[in-house]
Amino acid sequence: MATDFSQKGLCGTIVCMVTGERRMKIERVISGRLKGLACVCENFEKPHNAAAILRTCEALGILNVYIVEEDVPFEPAKGVTQGAEKWVILHRFRRAERAIAALKEAGYEIYAAVPREGSLSLEELPADRPLALAFGAEATGLSEKLMSACAGTFRIPMWGFSQSLNVSVAAAIALYHCARARRRYLGREGDLSSEELSALRARYLELSLPPSQRPRDGTH
Amino acid sequence: MATDFSQKGLCGTIVCMVTGERRMKIERVISGRLKGLACVCENFEKPHNAAAILRTCEALGILNVYIVEEDVPFEPAKGVTQGAEKWVILHRFRRAERAIAALKEAGYEIYAAVPREGSLSLEELPADRPLALAFGAEATGLSEKLMSACAGTFRIPMWGFSQSLNVSVAAAIALYHCARARRRYLGREGDLSSEELSALRARYLELSLPPSQRPRDGTH
Repeated sequence: MATDFSQKGLCGTIVCMVTGERRMKIERVISGRLKGLACVCENFEKPHNAAAILRTCEALGILNVYIVEEDVPFEPAKGVTQGAEKWVILHRFRRAERAIAALKEAGYEIYAAVPREGSLSLEELPADRPLALAFGAEATGLSEKLMSACAGTFRIPMWGFSQSLNVSVAAAIALYHCARARRRYLGREGDLSSEELSALRARYLELSLPPSQRPRDGTH
Repeated sequence: MATDFSQKGLCGTIVCMVTGERRMKIERVISGRLKGLACVCENFEKPHNAAAILRTCEALGILNVYIVEEDVPFEPAKGVTQGAEKWVILHRFRRAERAIAALKEAGYEIYAAVPREGSLSLEELPADRPLALAFGAEATGLSEKLMSACAGTFRIPMWGFSQSLNVSVAAAIALYHCARARRRYLGREGDLSSEELSALRARYLELSLPPSQRPRDGTH
């Protein structure tokens, strides 16, 4: 499974420009990054939901977020993300077919969040393979195209009169549970290869500098 | 531990006015209601966070929600709750001291959500006793009064640059995890006594009627 950040080498100049404390933070973060669990957001209509999901993914160590904006552009509310969009890898697609192809190419089995009888319980989702959890538009759910590409559907167990949750809440519960299950299965916090760690380290070091101090592409 | 809904007997007239399907739904919901896990919301500023938490509690089967509105009135966004406020028991307090006294009287051990080093991990919270999880204002957190009444603080394990989550997201993850742990500990879905079940059944039957058809207090 490949993440699509570019394989830049670590740049000595940048390392010197970033404080030791920040470098330690970067090491801690990259060592906990999971590529074996991805999040897919399709046609989200509410900017605060889009923003909350990015913030949740970043905080839980989920590296790859796939965005399908075939019907609705993905516009996370700025104040709510708290900069999370910098630290996850956003794969944006105008057409669902392209997103599906990219997810399959990257080795993910896709499961759709569908709160209805017959869906697997969240607890039944497999932890032994790379999963992508897909969440659809607040009112209408996932498109038929995305649904037909899924290995299955899942639901969060519920005990109330309400049979659904806010999408950013549902995503948080599902991603937290699956990230925990995946880490337990792997027996470690993160799952990046040493090459991927190097590339992500370089990316985060660069992003830790103010934009005016970042090297332009090709200068290192 | 007492819930404070009134101990009304089941009213035959109301039962006849509610469809069989609705009655089955009510039975399913009350059998999964947990009193051994409560949620405390203090001085929430954003109506959509207040609303999302009520909806989450209802869906997860958490019956008792304690509201402290000493500094800020609790005003959940109407469209977002989807009616959840009808199906949980809201205990509203203008002063934190009163809320604390009520929580202790009801037998809860209070744990405060505080995303910092030194807090217990969510996974370390006890499942063998009634817990109340307390969440504070979005910007400033919990008041000193509430903090000093807590048995401890807890945090959600995080792997990102961000060291906090949106409060409604944090509450959802924590309540889902603790409700699951509590149900596993108890070995059953709900924990109401037969008296409490009767009272809650009567309450839900009544609330299932349109307001114009509900008996006024004292008429049954």
